[in-house]
Amino acid sequence: MKRIETQLPPPARDKLLFTPGPLTTSLSVKEAMLHDAGSWHFEFNALVATIRERLLALAGASRAQGYEAVLLQGSGSFGVEAVLQTCVPASGRVAVLSNGAYGERMIQMLQHARIAYVVLRTPENTPSDPVALDRALAADPGITHVAAVHCETTTGILNPIDELGRVTRRHRRSYIVDAMSSFGALPIDLTGWGIDHLISSANKCIEGVPGFSFVISRREALLASEGHARSLCMDLLAQLKGFEKNGQFRYTPPTHSILAFARALDELETEGGPVARCARYQRNHETLVTGMQALGFRPYLDPAVQSCIITSFLFPSDPEFTFDAFYRRLSDKGFIIYPGKISQADTFRIGSIGRLFEADIHALLAAVQQTVNELGILVECPTPPAATETVEVLR
Amino acid sequence: MKRIETQLPPPARDKLLFTPGPLTTSLSVKEAMLHDAGSWHFEFNALVATIRERLLALAGASRAQGYEAVLLQGSGSFGVEAVLQTCVPASGRVAVLSNGAYGERMIQMLQHARIAYVVLRTPENTPSDPVALDRALAADPGITHVAAVHCETTTGILNPIDELGRVTRRHRRSYIVDAMSSFGALPIDLTGWGIDHLISSANKCIEGVPGFSFVISRREALLASEGHARSLCMDLLAQLKGFEKNGQFRYTPPTHSILAFARALDELETEGGPVARCARYQRNHETLVTGMQALGFRPYLDPAVQSCIITSFLFPSDPEFTFDAFYRRLSDKGFIIYPGKISQADTFRIGSIGRLFEADIHALLAAVQQTVNELGILVECPTPPAATETVEVLR
Repeated sequence: MKRIETQLPPPARDKLLFTPGPLTTSLSVKEAMLHDAGSWHFEFNALVATIRERLLALAGASRAQGYEAVLLQGSGSFGVEAVLQTCVPASGRVAVLSNGAYGERMIQMLQHARIAYVVLRTPENTPSDPVALDRALAADPGITHVAAVHCETTTGILNPIDELGRVTRRHRRSYIVDAMSSFGALPIDLTGWGIDHLISSANKCIEGVPGFSFVISRREALLASEGHARSLCMDLLAQLKGFEKNGQFRYTPPTHSILAFARALDELETEGGPVARCARYQRNHETLVTGMQALGFRPYLDPAVQSCIITSFLFPSDPEFTFDAFYRRLSDKGFIIYPGKISQADTFRIGSIGRLFEADIHALLAAVQQTVNELGILVECPTPPAATETVEVLR
Repeated sequence: MKRIETQLPPPARDKLLFTPGPLTTSLSVKEAMLHDAGSWHFEFNALVATIRERLLALAGASRAQGYEAVLLQGSGSFGVEAVLQTCVPASGRVAVLSNGAYGERMIQMLQHARIAYVVLRTPENTPSDPVALDRALAADPGITHVAAVHCETTTGILNPIDELGRVTRRHRRSYIVDAMSSFGALPIDLTGWGIDHLISSANKCIEGVPGFSFVISRREALLASEGHARSLCMDLLAQLKGFEKNGQFRYTPPTHSILAFARALDELETEGGPVARCARYQRNHETLVTGMQALGFRPYLDPAVQSCIITSFLFPSDPEFTFDAFYRRLSDKGFIIYPGKISQADTFRIGSIGRLFEADIHALLAAVQQTVNELGILVECPTPPAATETVEVLR
């Protein structure tokens, strides 16, 4: 029978995004983009200045304590690469703690910039290891920088950036933290953990729209990088100097994303700040895991190392299960989940962040159940691989 | 008397932007951003694919002819730097034709990447010189790439990228054109002029919002750059391979800017394509220059080399004139103009591009007249410096 086209308007809301970002954002955040701002104009520059201040406050830091927030055009990865390309001298060497795609991406960045590095690699289900870092730094005084990922969204694992920071500080090396999917929700003690450069992005826990990353740097660490930058656009020190000279981005900023971000910061404050936001994400995550387990699905990670940001679930053993069919049917119902990125197991991912509430998780769970029924899949999942303590050190 | 605060709603429209971008865009383009799209989702990827096709068509090129359009996160400058960092081998040398800030910026990019270069510099009021390029290429077979700026928005001057292209092709070197503020309005014959890489941005003549640049490349020229990239995020070849592998950006794209861009491409088509858009800009420009001259202002450039994109006007000789006061009073009236960027003369700039029509230019002119009256300035302008044929060659 031919499908009858209705004259209904498009759905009142977009498909919900259960991803690590770009996320579902509030309508109000998006409406902030219904304006054209002049990137040279004093009103826009004043807004950028308040954003830089508010980011420092969110990090529990201030200019008086010697920290600066620098915004950079591009995605979060541009911010990470900007730190590496700006701050590591030609003679430097970086120890990268890797247990997923974002650690591996830092290695690729270092390879492109022809910067020397050492990799401390743990399996994808095992947190980065402070003891191995301690040994590596003691053995190799040539290591100038340590780079770690806070929440590795490859799996959703949480890495001990506090302990890694204490080890790094004890050895007096510079400490770089990719806090892309954690900043704005999970607690971060920038000064206490000795973080020199923390990178995050507009479209993660602050729930803005994509378009730029930001770096919160210890000013002295950034000033010490004079002359190292290998790229003009990604020269983070020059970007800071630009803001300090005239309040402007050196090159065209994503003005609309920045207007949206200011609104998103307001809404984070209204919600009760990072603590309240983290509590919402935690409820989302727990509702999700409980519900998925009731349907027979199993999380990939041990709960002890699992963040509330994003959760990896194992594929059911049923050979009838294909991610593509599962994904498409959920999409048809208005729910967009995320593919897996793990090399050691077949998984898919479901994010808990963005403008999502428990009711949305329940709606997703109902759609998952319906999809499982439609596909006639038996949901029995294999036992996830056990965590191992092996640390692979690569020079 | 104390100013009485009215309860009026905010103005129905934003201040108009008479700048080189970000520009005033249509409400409809901005409304396209009221949606959250999944960056991994097939519907979004299909949209990106159509955008890449439409950009090729706008350039009068196609995939069958061996061209590719690659979108890159960040501002237009990120696109220019990505071409230089990706395409020039370690042993390469770039001849940069410079007569303004954007030519100079390419030199800074090459310096950061430690790439060898030669500068063919003409004064800011003098177009780049194909004869000098011919001589330089004949004398130096080590020059592998030629880089030129189409419309140098420092002044608004048009450079002869057609003739420069013929010279470059005759000498069989690779040709890079920064067409940031011209693509989508001014005629460009990509294949005829032998352009290997043309760079432009979302928020110029296509009248989208900022967030990404795009590069239209001869596929073979891009494939030949394998292994040269000095940056992961700005690796244009890897970005192309990403699109070809799964239709996706490698790293989070500015999804909202991309939704807006698709709408902007629709509106460019509705207007009648680049020819009609250029005609509107030309009318804007002529109305502007005629009106400003009637008020006593003088353009900096000779009309023979002036583009319709943006116009530099000399400061009046009256010592009472200050750009800041002039700018602020125009801003108070709802009109944002742009500061000058010329090293040889004191100027300000007024752009003719974006969602601006003759009526807007007339409104701006009335505001300029009113501002001149308020400030009590006598508008008499000095004679602009004459163009000189001197080409400074720096190695």
